[in-house]
Amino acid sequence: MSANEFELIEAIRRRATTTRADVLLGIGDDAALLQVPTGHALVVATDTLNAGVHFPVETPPADIGWKALAVNLSDLAAMGAAPAWCTLSLSLPEADATWVDAFLEGFMRLAVLHDVALVGGDTTRGPLSISVTVHGIVDPARALRRAAAREDDDVWVSGTLGDAAAALEQWRAGALIDPTLRERLDRPTPRVALGRALGGIARACIDVSDGLLADLGHVCVASGVGAEIQIDALPASDALRAEFGGDARRHLQAAGGDDYELCFTASVAAREAIETAARNVDVMATRVGRITARGPGPVAVFDADGAPWLPGSMGWRHFAD
Amino acid sequence: MSANEFELIEAIRRRATTTRADVLLGIGDDAALLQVPTGHALVVATDTLNAGVHFPVETPPADIGWKALAVNLSDLAAMGAAPAWCTLSLSLPEADATWVDAFLEGFMRLAVLHDVALVGGDTTRGPLSISVTVHGIVDPARALRRAAAREDDDVWVSGTLGDAAAALEQWRAGALIDPTLRERLDRPTPRVALGRALGGIARACIDVSDGLLADLGHVCVASGVGAEIQIDALPASDALRAEFGGDARRHLQAAGGDDYELCFTASVAAREAIETAARNVDVMATRVGRITARGPGPVAVFDADGAPWLPGSMGWRHFAD
Repeated sequence: MSANEFELIEAIRRRATTTRADVLLGIGDDAALLQVPTGHALVVATDTLNAGVHFPVETPPADIGWKALAVNLSDLAAMGAAPAWCTLSLSLPEADATWVDAFLEGFMRLAVLHDVALVGGDTTRGPLSISVTVHGIVDPARALRRAAAREDDDVWVSGTLGDAAAALEQWRAGALIDPTLRERLDRPTPRVALGRALGGIARACIDVSDGLLADLGHVCVASGVGAEIQIDALPASDALRAEFGGDARRHLQAAGGDDYELCFTASVAAREAIETAARNVDVMATRVGRITARGPGPVAVFDADGAPWLPGSMGWRHFAD
Repeated sequence: MSANEFELIEAIRRRATTTRADVLLGIGDDAALLQVPTGHALVVATDTLNAGVHFPVETPPADIGWKALAVNLSDLAAMGAAPAWCTLSLSLPEADATWVDAFLEGFMRLAVLHDVALVGGDTTRGPLSISVTVHGIVDPARALRRAAAREDDDVWVSGTLGDAAAALEQWRAGALIDPTLRERLDRPTPRVALGRALGGIARACIDVSDGLLADLGHVCVASGVGAEIQIDALPASDALRAEFGGDARRHLQAAGGDDYELCFTASVAAREAIETAARNVDVMATRVGRITARGPGPVAVFDADGAPWLPGSMGWRHFAD
């Protein structure tokens, strides 16, 4: 079903109604006009998904829509910010109104869950690519920054690790993909409520998109510290345990990306506050290691016997060397 | 010259230094933290350029970088906003550090001219595509909106029209491209200072990206009015006059896109104020028609004898029907 750009924009505009009073002007002008509340900082993140790189081309469009917004909301979660608005740039090989409708269903379902208004964007011809910019607000004194980790902090992760990478592994191997793992890959849950609850309690925070070791490594470099992880402390879902065992599973948990869980650090004194905050938003939080003084470098990983455990790869890079 | 994603981001970060005090946190965290001044609204626009669609693949990367930011700044200009920050999503077939360096030279040259801080983004593998989101600030009472045109307003345009479309026409015909026209296509000048000067003086405003008739048509639809244009009042550059004559030139001026001039409306009483504002920022402003009561519809175009003049096409659509 073919349409022109103006018809596509009109279809998007119809679905993008919002009740947010801070949207002074949404889709339909040269730019959106938005009201940031006094005393709050604006938080901005952007992420692009390309077909064949970030998702298999045969992924259902509703799942692509969900994920395009989810990976961006995850960045806001990692700052402890409250989501507010987003823009959407959609490049499509052809103006397929049916595809766009399904895409928007997934995108707007997640947007409504987090009260995010779609306030602008563009549609254009090109290879399938989705670029989203999200805007949130945060009290700057409570924002979670990568550079805030300190020696002897606990290292925590939310939820379970390795599920999305396991689904991708099964897909690459041509195997039947476990439906629970697949849901984690296609419809990741941005930990927005947890990120907001951690503001003022946790210190550094990052979302796990490239793999725990790579992402915790970014925190270490930004903070000028080191980190140690207990490989067997990493939380695993029942679905992951059923499908992968031993070092294959450990590798997926330590180095697999795309889970969009939060990895954060907090002082030992904050343990109870963290556990209460996580319980209040119904998300599991697990202590998996600690921050050390050894200058920034690769994260050290130990097994149950205290011996070093070495993963085969340090997270997934979009550009291989 | 191959690089990985982290090296590319580091190269971008090195070039993205800013002196703006309102950037609390720039490139290098999960999101940027930015301070919007009290009493001002946030203005957000986003635009994507794809190779082969928005620019010929052989365009020099520095020109692509300039244009990717220029088309976005033009949207802020059309709102009367002051530019502040931007994010950049770059999809590249391969991680070519030399290409990225040249691209950034053009991008940052324009960014520095307008004191725009590059505060975030991502780089990823995929067909060449550049998606930019710009942020500006404006007193919402002075913002220029498409819906603000009123009956009997004058219709004005800045600069000259048709130059970029003329360059594209020469390029498509395989002819030698006039260098002045080519500069207008590859390095458009966003009318930021004029847009800001028009706040509180002009009524409706839009930037000319799809062609004057199409874009003025958007103003008419948003405002519930009609418009009449005098075809021979449209300003033409000497370069355009030298290369195209008669109806070919008129067609380029009325329907050619990509000039990124401003088209705006203002009351007859504001004529002197408009002329002074334009003179102060050293940009030509020309009255080309007026707003009429006839409900929203195609813009009416008249020749010097008062007879209707009909263009062959109503602006360029990214998706042809």
